[in-house]
Amino acid sequence: MKRNHITFFENLIGKQNVFTDNDVLEKYSHDETENISILPSIVLKPCTTLDVSGIMKYCFTNNLCVTPRGAGTGLSGGAIPILNGIVLSLENMNAIILIDEKNLQVTTQPGVITEVLQNAVKEKGLFYPPDPSSRGTCFIGGNVAENSGGPRAVKYGVVKDYVLNLEIVLPNGDVMWTGSNVLKNVTGYNITQLIVGSEGTLAIITQIVLKLIPAPKHDLVLMAPFKSVHKAAEAVSAIFRAGFIPSALELMEIDAIKITQEFVPNSIIPVHDDILAHLIVEVDGNDLEKLFLDMEKISEVLESFDATEVLFAETAQQKDELWKFRRRVAEIVKNNGYTIEEDTVVPRYYLPQLIEAMKFLGQKHGFKVVCYGHAGDGNLHIRINHPTIKNSYQNPIMETILTELFEEVQRLGGTISGEHGIGLIQKKYLPIVFNDTQIQLHKAIKNVFDPTHILNPNKIF
Amino acid sequence: MKRNHITFFENLIGKQNVFTDNDVLEKYSHDETENISILPSIVLKPCTTLDVSGIMKYCFTNNLCVTPRGAGTGLSGGAIPILNGIVLSLENMNAIILIDEKNLQVTTQPGVITEVLQNAVKEKGLFYPPDPSSRGTCFIGGNVAENSGGPRAVKYGVVKDYVLNLEIVLPNGDVMWTGSNVLKNVTGYNITQLIVGSEGTLAIITQIVLKLIPAPKHDLVLMAPFKSVHKAAEAVSAIFRAGFIPSALELMEIDAIKITQEFVPNSIIPVHDDILAHLIVEVDGNDLEKLFLDMEKISEVLESFDATEVLFAETAQQKDELWKFRRRVAEIVKNNGYTIEEDTVVPRYYLPQLIEAMKFLGQKHGFKVVCYGHAGDGNLHIRINHPTIKNSYQNPIMETILTELFEEVQRLGGTISGEHGIGLIQKKYLPIVFNDTQIQLHKAIKNVFDPTHILNPNKIF
Repeated sequence: MKRNHITFFENLIGKQNVFTDNDVLEKYSHDETENISILPSIVLKPCTTLDVSGIMKYCFTNNLCVTPRGAGTGLSGGAIPILNGIVLSLENMNAIILIDEKNLQVTTQPGVITEVLQNAVKEKGLFYPPDPSSRGTCFIGGNVAENSGGPRAVKYGVVKDYVLNLEIVLPNGDVMWTGSNVLKNVTGYNITQLIVGSEGTLAIITQIVLKLIPAPKHDLVLMAPFKSVHKAAEAVSAIFRAGFIPSALELMEIDAIKITQEFVPNSIIPVHDDILAHLIVEVDGNDLEKLFLDMEKISEVLESFDATEVLFAETAQQKDELWKFRRRVAEIVKNNGYTIEEDTVVPRYYLPQLIEAMKFLGQKHGFKVVCYGHAGDGNLHIRINHPTIKNSYQNPIMETILTELFEEVQRLGGTISGEHGIGLIQKKYLPIVFNDTQIQLHKAIKNVFDPTHILNPNKIF
Repeated sequence: MKRNHITFFENLIGKQNVFTDNDVLEKYSHDETENISILPSIVLKPCTTLDVSGIMKYCFTNNLCVTPRGAGTGLSGGAIPILNGIVLSLENMNAIILIDEKNLQVTTQPGVITEVLQNAVKEKGLFYPPDPSSRGTCFIGGNVAENSGGPRAVKYGVVKDYVLNLEIVLPNGDVMWTGSNVLKNVTGYNITQLIVGSEGTLAIITQIVLKLIPAPKHDLVLMAPFKSVHKAAEAVSAIFRAGFIPSALELMEIDAIKITQEFVPNSIIPVHDDILAHLIVEVDGNDLEKLFLDMEKISEVLESFDATEVLFAETAQQKDELWKFRRRVAEIVKNNGYTIEEDTVVPRYYLPQLIEAMKFLGQKHGFKVVCYGHAGDGNLHIRINHPTIKNSYQNPIMETILTELFEEVQRLGGTISGEHGIGLIQKKYLPIVFNDTQIQLHKAIKNVFDPTHILNPNKIF
């Protein structure tokens, strides 16, 4: 980065918010995606929308590439500065601006940790449901940029279902709001939803208005072990067809559980020799008696698909420990050799076929695979432990394997990513699910927002 | 329309689907918007996606304007062929293609009547919630194009919350799907939600995949009369703040009720001299006892805002009649002099201020006004009965009045349209809520899809 650029940024946002030393650059060279690291040339930490706008105006004029970054917890390489450009970290913009109890809304800056935001609104009796596993460290801004999900999405929807309005800075530095702080809005195109999930390629999000709902008073959680992964997966869609919408419906294969148990011992999760998978089912609402009745009926459904038993998390602590366990799975299996993760999603009923296809590929190509995730949504996280390959990015063998996987996903009516995004590591596979018309349309929309391709370049497509 | 064009269309989609006689042109010259009528030069009724694609390819090459049309029940002039071009009616594409009970989805053509679709999935125990007042006549395709709402939106969301995937024909005739038939999808930009609510200006919708949910088993409905419109409006947000999400929460001013009673007598809706407004509250769910308890508590909230009494619709028939009554209000008050309708939306808590602002404008400018609508969403339908003006379109006095109204709406944090769209009659007011950056962005997106402006030209902006 040329000295005159650095001086400009120092004058604009203050020396204390401009970083060029190697240990900082190193820290901002990667997110949580596999093992990919590309050094930025500089890290900027603006404190206001005006700062962000000033940075973008300058970068637009000087044709400098900018990769916006939340907490760096992404799983598709969205925050990796692929062209060694500027990393623009939103971490200093970390204020909750207004909890509007009268209208059940919150206005926040992007750098607020998701769980901090959830707890702040919870204190007012309000509820912001989306709960990515990384909620203790990820930022709400990154959640919006990636349209994150999490276990509760099955009942409450994903981030997009809560975003009412966004303040954004366009690549040329212009600032605008995408919508209005209202529950229904057909005034113009849905720019808000075009920005949600656009992975920092269209604009930088500087303020977020979220819808809140009244917090449910009670929840119940059960675990059901199965001797067959197929049967567990079949039970998932049967629960909905029986008329229930659980507030979470997760599947974990036994290998994921066994590995995680080593690091987060949990006594209520049974690990018998003949068990191959568990389902976690949570229901929530205001009427505890009704929830018990629902769980009774859901248990019957589970048993009809040969669940070996149904175990309730009896206390708040047990529930808490169970969810803590579930949230640690990704990180722990990753650290134990399952470095490559996919985020496929299919229509819920085809989950058993997806799992079987994945097992088949593992046998065919000689790798271990473990599946877990948001079964209720048909969204399966697939972790791959390959004996020689630790990174899918630009690896020809993995490209063959993933091409076969995504082609099968597409045959099942599904698509590449349910909640992690395309980012860097999946973009090669986009032509499997998109034809040329679709890809050209995406590129043309990118060009509208970012005609000179300075904002998070070379991501998605 | 030149003879060679007509011949081409006759050869493409069959003579029986091409109309140039005056009585047909007259019928397709208007929708339900105020009193605006502009004759098309020809009406085409394609039967397949291929037909639509062929028409658009030809129109693209020959620079012919096309206005797509559903059932013509729109309220913002979206289906009016403003440049006297081609009306492309989707009425022949009226098949429900697949009700996928395993995945809780339905795939449908756009020309299916919304209520027909709702009843078809209901027979399978499934539920498609969005219920615009016109659901007995409107098409699902029009609902998607306008992102329609209705009473149930307050709990269940609007059309956009159910659209998983769309087959669209672009203005150049290219056919593509916007997404995938899955519940969560972050594969590329959210093109699906860009099309939903785009009012037929970006593409023609030829197939729709909707999410369905299990049907709730029970519902309860109450009416609460108020001596003060302000108090009734205040009670609305209090219900949510007390922790309830009704499945409908409607407000009707007494004048709307009195006029409607003349044509749809309803004995359970009280019309006393001192009553100024009613709220209708519906709750639904699977546990009847819980619903009764909820209604008790909601009644307490209503009474704390001086509801004079709380009246339950006791039987299925009474409930049905009450909703039939509510659904007829718009049409009946329109036919009784309140010809001009606005569709403003504000954050829910500011509903009383919006109503007061409207009353003030009525007094100032000498017109009668009656309000009703989806109070739970902050979405108010405002009907204007002006002594001399029957049509807001291109009327300078109405332009002054509406400018004042929308400026106040904007001050309250709201926007111009919650569910009717901008179309023809509201486009003049877009600069009140959008700055130049926002409008330019809209235009640039339009240009991506429709570079030669042949598809529903001169709408929205």
